[in-house]
Amino acid sequence: MTDLVEALARAVGPAHVLQAGDLSAWEQDWRKRARGKALAVVRPASTEEVAQVVRACAQAGVSLVPQGGNTGLSVGSTPDDSGTQVVLSLQRMNRVRAIDPDNLTITVEAGCVLQSLQEAARESGFLFPLSLAAEGSCTIGGNLATNAGGTQVLRYGNARDLCLGLEVVTAAGQVWEGLSGLRKDNTGYDLRDLMVGSEGTLAVITAATLKLYPLPAATLTAWAAVPSMEAAVELLNLARARLGAGLTGFEAMGQFALSLVRRHMPQLRVPFEHSPWCVLLENADHESEDHARAQFEALLAAALDAGCVTDAVVAENLAQAQALWHARESIPLAQSLEGLNIKHDISVPISRIPAFCAETGERLAREVPGARLVNFAHLGDGNLHYNVQAPAGGDPARFLREHEPQVNTLVFDQVQRFGGSISAEHGIGSLKAATLPRYKSPVALEMMRAIKRALDPQGILNPGRVIT
Amino acid sequence: MTDLVEALARAVGPAHVLQAGDLSAWEQDWRKRARGKALAVVRPASTEEVAQVVRACAQAGVSLVPQGGNTGLSVGSTPDDSGTQVVLSLQRMNRVRAIDPDNLTITVEAGCVLQSLQEAARESGFLFPLSLAAEGSCTIGGNLATNAGGTQVLRYGNARDLCLGLEVVTAAGQVWEGLSGLRKDNTGYDLRDLMVGSEGTLAVITAATLKLYPLPAATLTAWAAVPSMEAAVELLNLARARLGAGLTGFEAMGQFALSLVRRHMPQLRVPFEHSPWCVLLENADHESEDHARAQFEALLAAALDAGCVTDAVVAENLAQAQALWHARESIPLAQSLEGLNIKHDISVPISRIPAFCAETGERLAREVPGARLVNFAHLGDGNLHYNVQAPAGGDPARFLREHEPQVNTLVFDQVQRFGGSISAEHGIGSLKAATLPRYKSPVALEMMRAIKRALDPQGILNPGRVIT
Repeated sequence: MTDLVEALARAVGPAHVLQAGDLSAWEQDWRKRARGKALAVVRPASTEEVAQVVRACAQAGVSLVPQGGNTGLSVGSTPDDSGTQVVLSLQRMNRVRAIDPDNLTITVEAGCVLQSLQEAARESGFLFPLSLAAEGSCTIGGNLATNAGGTQVLRYGNARDLCLGLEVVTAAGQVWEGLSGLRKDNTGYDLRDLMVGSEGTLAVITAATLKLYPLPAATLTAWAAVPSMEAAVELLNLARARLGAGLTGFEAMGQFALSLVRRHMPQLRVPFEHSPWCVLLENADHESEDHARAQFEALLAAALDAGCVTDAVVAENLAQAQALWHARESIPLAQSLEGLNIKHDISVPISRIPAFCAETGERLAREVPGARLVNFAHLGDGNLHYNVQAPAGGDPARFLREHEPQVNTLVFDQVQRFGGSISAEHGIGSLKAATLPRYKSPVALEMMRAIKRALDPQGILNPGRVIT
Repeated sequence: MTDLVEALARAVGPAHVLQAGDLSAWEQDWRKRARGKALAVVRPASTEEVAQVVRACAQAGVSLVPQGGNTGLSVGSTPDDSGTQVVLSLQRMNRVRAIDPDNLTITVEAGCVLQSLQEAARESGFLFPLSLAAEGSCTIGGNLATNAGGTQVLRYGNARDLCLGLEVVTAAGQVWEGLSGLRKDNTGYDLRDLMVGSEGTLAVITAATLKLYPLPAATLTAWAAVPSMEAAVELLNLARARLGAGLTGFEAMGQFALSLVRRHMPQLRVPFEHSPWCVLLENADHESEDHARAQFEALLAAALDAGCVTDAVVAENLAQAQALWHARESIPLAQSLEGLNIKHDISVPISRIPAFCAETGERLAREVPGARLVNFAHLGDGNLHYNVQAPAGGDPARFLREHEPQVNTLVFDQVQRFGGSISAEHGIGSLKAATLPRYKSPVALEMMRAIKRALDPQGILNPGRVIT
């Protein structure tokens, strides 16, 4: 391995090959589910340096774990515990290479932090709409490698939908210059979308050209009490029909999830504590704030008439809007403060969510008595964060030890019955790689394996992740 | 081959294995660029029958040419002239399998004609936005196989962007049931997007689950005179900022292209004959026709003030709107009536279109004196139909014979210089398969070939198309 380390040092400079000291920032995953041990952490500063690193590893037959902000939730960006894998950190490649206002595109390096990218877009008068909890530390390379979702997917799609072109380093250490800013390009297979979401197992993303959007004239937020999940879906339909693409957010929250926010963050105001469900809606308008408000109020009046909303507030100003979003976004922290829980990031067709929730809730109550459900959803995307908490007063750690596999199987089997996905936006990583074959079509898995063998015949790119 | 034909007859019934009579509907491409000879035309009626056909061909080592409406423009769906290829026509698989209003999805078989699909959506109160000239005879399977574009891409994306799930038959004759209606699904590689646009070379698409959208309350059309391509781009920016996603169409047309419509279809009214460029804009509104009109008029007033529009009309009613669209859509026929021409379906970043047009026009004038340019563009997508017509009074057939390779090379070299694509929406087929390697990254081509070998190791699916 000395030869390899020397080759890596020649490629990126000795200061950027880390082997000693505390490497937990690179070896420990975000949720602290697994702690690995790296042969080395390598921090290249350019695409050519990445290519040299990959070639050196390929020659030595050593595997690579690409890593961005290391905020993933599926243990896909940390090394295993063998001490034989090289962590390839893209964090030093963080430049905005170009903004093209007439083409509505921005070209950035993989290590650019999502929030920096959002800010660079805004400073040029545009919106880059990808938005998620970890945006202060996750990188766009990681967002693309995992096809990240978040709160604006309803309108703007996932990370894949926001990407027009990629620059990647292949498993052989070649550079594919695919940084096209084109909205139409039918010259062969869609390598871009294949790389996006492949979690670093097919190539290393080093840069991307992404879509920008005009900034809306006004963005308003409302919070509505809805009597049931059926009513939430009815409200979604009404909002889509009346607001069209103006509807940029639609988050449903179960009252138990909100009650945890009230309990653990008593300083936050969380409206409508007697409604079984609440919905946060966002409306972006290209005309004016007055127009947005009139549209929003007409929608909510129609929803009250139809009975799918029982009460609602529209934020009067930015501070109120931020307070409502803050209440929504505090759910994950509130549930952590309540204790460890079993998380599921699942999706089912929107039309089937009410039945899924009713039936799965009943099965859980029957098979795991006392378990409490923290359910909040990007409902407009059919994406539920369907988390199961220990019974009140119980020991959360013991609950997980005794029930995690049982609860996972129950929930995932239900997801499969309802035509859904066991990973809506968090990816597979190593956390779900062994579970995937139980729920994915064997024909699809075989195609995936064939593609992996074709593009990474040595198996050096993030082995053991996604497919095994 | 007798064994194979018998196996095919067992699979689909002898009435649906055609070998005799006039097979030109399947053997001749739409633009009559190439006439092939099929071993047989096979017309399965179900996914299982498709799978049996593929397995029979795989066993016999005979290659298959999947075909939908056979309206492609790149000779990708007709057999070669060897008489050894089986044409697999999907036209009998034309059912709408399901519409899910709450999930905003429709599931259809590959042979469903695009217009039938649009109508099925509309009858259920929804919009399926893919729209293109051949919609009366092309099929959704062909649209997906070629990642079709058309006139609504600016707002709704290409065919790929409208597809949530696929059912395909692999080269081994296995069925992948990937008909997910999910907006978020991160369980492995994006096989769906890989199949879409692969022109039948990686698998046979048999059905798809597609996105629907709420019908807008009103759709208005305007026609504006603009003084230059720079002004057209400025108008596009203004329209995107003011209308947001309401801007559903933005077509730019050179005055020479419009003059051909006036000459060959004198019954059509084509506004603004003294402007070098005209733009057709479409605005879809979820509020009301009054609101759409007010928005449109405010936009055009601002554009007149800014000088990027010199005159404009907004259609007063549906008939006027249809007449304006009809003028735009008559350009291809008008140029045919003027005589054969050299067509290019290209894209470049929108910001570079003015310079591309100026520079390429100058080079053409210098190197091919007298050549006349029929230029019309889906400008909002950066997609130019950049067609070169023989000099006035010249012999078009002789012009093509003498100048087609020279003109293609000139235009494609310019496209490459400007970071564009030599096939924006029409695909590669066999027409451009030999040209592609000159303009596509060798690294990308090698990845494409590796994927082709991995998913179709026998090379029986549409060989010679896309990659060679």
